[in-house]
Amino acid sequence: MESELKEMLIDLDTIKRSLPDPSLLASIDKMQSRVEHLTDLAKSAPVRRSKVKDMSAEVVDSNPYSRLMALQRMGIVANYERIREFSVAIVGIGGVGSVAAEMLTRCGIGRLLLYDYDKVELANMNRLFFRPEQVGMTKTDAAVQTLSDINPDVVLESYTMNITTLQGFETFMSSLKNKTFSPSKEGSGVDLVLSCVDNYEARMVVNQACNELNQTWMESGVSEDAVSGHIQLLVPGETACFACAPPLVVASGVDERTLKREGVCAASLPTTMGVVAGLLVQNTLKYLLKFGHVSPYLGYNALKDFFPTMEMKPNPQCSNTACLQRQKEYILAKPARDAAAAKAKKDEVSVPEGPVHDDNEWNISVVDDAEPVTENASSSDTLPDGLVHELPIADEFQKPSDPEEMTNSVDDLDELRKQLEALNAD
Amino acid sequence: MESELKEMLIDLDTIKRSLPDPSLLASIDKMQSRVEHLTDLAKSAPVRRSKVKDMSAEVVDSNPYSRLMALQRMGIVANYERIREFSVAIVGIGGVGSVAAEMLTRCGIGRLLLYDYDKVELANMNRLFFRPEQVGMTKTDAAVQTLSDINPDVVLESYTMNITTLQGFETFMSSLKNKTFSPSKEGSGVDLVLSCVDNYEARMVVNQACNELNQTWMESGVSEDAVSGHIQLLVPGETACFACAPPLVVASGVDERTLKREGVCAASLPTTMGVVAGLLVQNTLKYLLKFGHVSPYLGYNALKDFFPTMEMKPNPQCSNTACLQRQKEYILAKPARDAAAAKAKKDEVSVPEGPVHDDNEWNISVVDDAEPVTENASSSDTLPDGLVHELPIADEFQKPSDPEEMTNSVDDLDELRKQLEALNAD
Repeated sequence: MESELKEMLIDLDTIKRSLPDPSLLASIDKMQSRVEHLTDLAKSAPVRRSKVKDMSAEVVDSNPYSRLMALQRMGIVANYERIREFSVAIVGIGGVGSVAAEMLTRCGIGRLLLYDYDKVELANMNRLFFRPEQVGMTKTDAAVQTLSDINPDVVLESYTMNITTLQGFETFMSSLKNKTFSPSKEGSGVDLVLSCVDNYEARMVVNQACNELNQTWMESGVSEDAVSGHIQLLVPGETACFACAPPLVVASGVDERTLKREGVCAASLPTTMGVVAGLLVQNTLKYLLKFGHVSPYLGYNALKDFFPTMEMKPNPQCSNTACLQRQKEYILAKPARDAAAAKAKKDEVSVPEGPVHDDNEWNISVVDDAEPVTENASSSDTLPDGLVHELPIADEFQKPSDPEEMTNSVDDLDELRKQLEALNAD
Repeated sequence: MESELKEMLIDLDTIKRSLPDPSLLASIDKMQSRVEHLTDLAKSAPVRRSKVKDMSAEVVDSNPYSRLMALQRMGIVANYERIREFSVAIVGIGGVGSVAAEMLTRCGIGRLLLYDYDKVELANMNRLFFRPEQVGMTKTDAAVQTLSDINPDVVLESYTMNITTLQGFETFMSSLKNKTFSPSKEGSGVDLVLSCVDNYEARMVVNQACNELNQTWMESGVSEDAVSGHIQLLVPGETACFACAPPLVVASGVDERTLKREGVCAASLPTTMGVVAGLLVQNTLKYLLKFGHVSPYLGYNALKDFFPTMEMKPNPQCSNTACLQRQKEYILAKPARDAAAAKAKKDEVSVPEGPVHDDNEWNISVVDDAEPVTENASSSDTLPDGLVHELPIADEFQKPSDPEEMTNSVDDLDELRKQLEALNAD
């Protein structure tokens, strides 16, 4: 805009000098002052920050990454800058997905893939991220606008479409497989898929895609009464998939009949969605950057500030054939996993100075893979305190022959370590 | 800008018609197309949403409050629109305070008082809320700009100053006492103070002000290694004040010596700060709108997804004289509280149809006020699992005569109810 205004001033000057009629001079003068005023306005408009080539740990006010790189000095993360190598796909850019996208953008993630078909409405303003001036834009366009302003270093790809349609699913699959960003990466083209959708059908589609691609993903959800939510880690073949067990919600004490009624508008709160997005991205960072313990399942009951945890094994009778295939592969790969774990343990002993937190090594992958088929996720009354099923229980989960169904809440790392040691001792 | 551009088009047309020299026509034409292009740009500039007189529950895309008013229909909140009557003061508009302010703004809070003396820097961009284009602005100015765009219905007051200076403290006190917004309100002019500061001195100043004003407040904090945080409710005379007991942090497994070193830049994450802000504002909503259980203390250990809870009684040897005065008043008011509780219980029984959640009645005020001086907050090794002291223990807390120090973690409402019933039975 500024350059255009400058050109106009030159043009006006030219006209002025060639004008034979002095009566027109007043008009030209007025126009010149108008253009000068517009120039001032244009100059005060926002300036975008420029791209940053390397993440610096330098402690200066002008460094957008200093407080993140400090995680290395504090002994939390071994190599923070690796975050630039990762691709994360976020399906659903609503109350949870948009905040998750903003958090990852501010953390300097390498590449974000954003999927949504909806438009921004004023009715979305009770959640974080979107602004009233974006009403009418697609959520993907509005998100790209905001996120690229916040951090131009992040590669943003947006897909304005519905993944539950036939064509949408194809585009979804091919976008996840695309490896242009990191051609040498194993598996699919993304490191993690975050499901932030608000309905069962879309979750089943994400589940299908991830089972087919052998893609680890995290699921998130917030109840329709806005006061509970959850996140869940799904590793094809290793943990329950979304079809293995009926989805769970944190019991909020609300009569289920007050939920899911025809034509009832769901409640939502920026607090609940902000907390769920925060827990989701925190676990994403732990998973990608290998620190702390990644929660297999974490619930949030806002009325009681209660956070149940648990784990779910895959269901050998799962109705999803891709899931069954991944389960088979997971069992076959057990000897290789055991050998790798033994080697890692040996290597660790020989390292003279380990990281501050050797918690890192005890990530979700080491938990209890001894007999993955003897226990399986399912229904029944073995749920941890405070959790209930969100949907009616499917028939296939009610077989009386099913063994003990669900492992109990394990939120202590020492406990996990002891369990692993007990398994290794067998 | 649009009107100015329109005027310019008229001027250009006038010049064109009076021009004797055809050689100038090309210049004028070029200018006209430039002005038209600028007009298009100006038209796409943001339009602010207009104020809304009443909160409507109507389920239409254009209603910014539909999803909040739905909390009533869902049986969570009895009267959501009361939120417009409340004033909340937020001290410190950093990584936690700014997000708390945005959440309350999107929830349609009546009035926000914002306190900070700092400026926005690029080094703040790893947390939510502030944008790179706001670098150099004061945090209060930038916050008012963003928040008034998001929700023009909220009354915003900003105080660009340091509350720890003598004059700053005076302004802080008088702003909290100002009752212009709700002249009939009892007590101070605000309903809650949220402390979102990043240092001990500022917390002690908020503590002093709130003890003097008998003002309920909530404290929040995030550790310097960015992977733990907490919120705490402080009710003068009823709970421990900030001077009653040394502050606590959730143990993150980090060697304390790696923290608080000279010249070390603290790490921070948008996830941890977003979660702490979400938990803080969720408890603010529960406190103001009287639903669910307000947590007396809630910790967040991000490495383990562990959330310790506990309660702290006031210390009868507290060094803060205003705290001791509030403790005395609280004990003297016990008969009146008992009578009110008995009346409330009687009234509740006579109501034919109660709210969906009778949890509401068991708010923090009913917990354990039988013998407030026999147990008191303090140091020692009676801390719940996973919590450690953030600062060295002060001498006054190490008296061997101190009785049992701290009540244990109580995160279950039924447990609270049982405790209360046991007390009433005595």
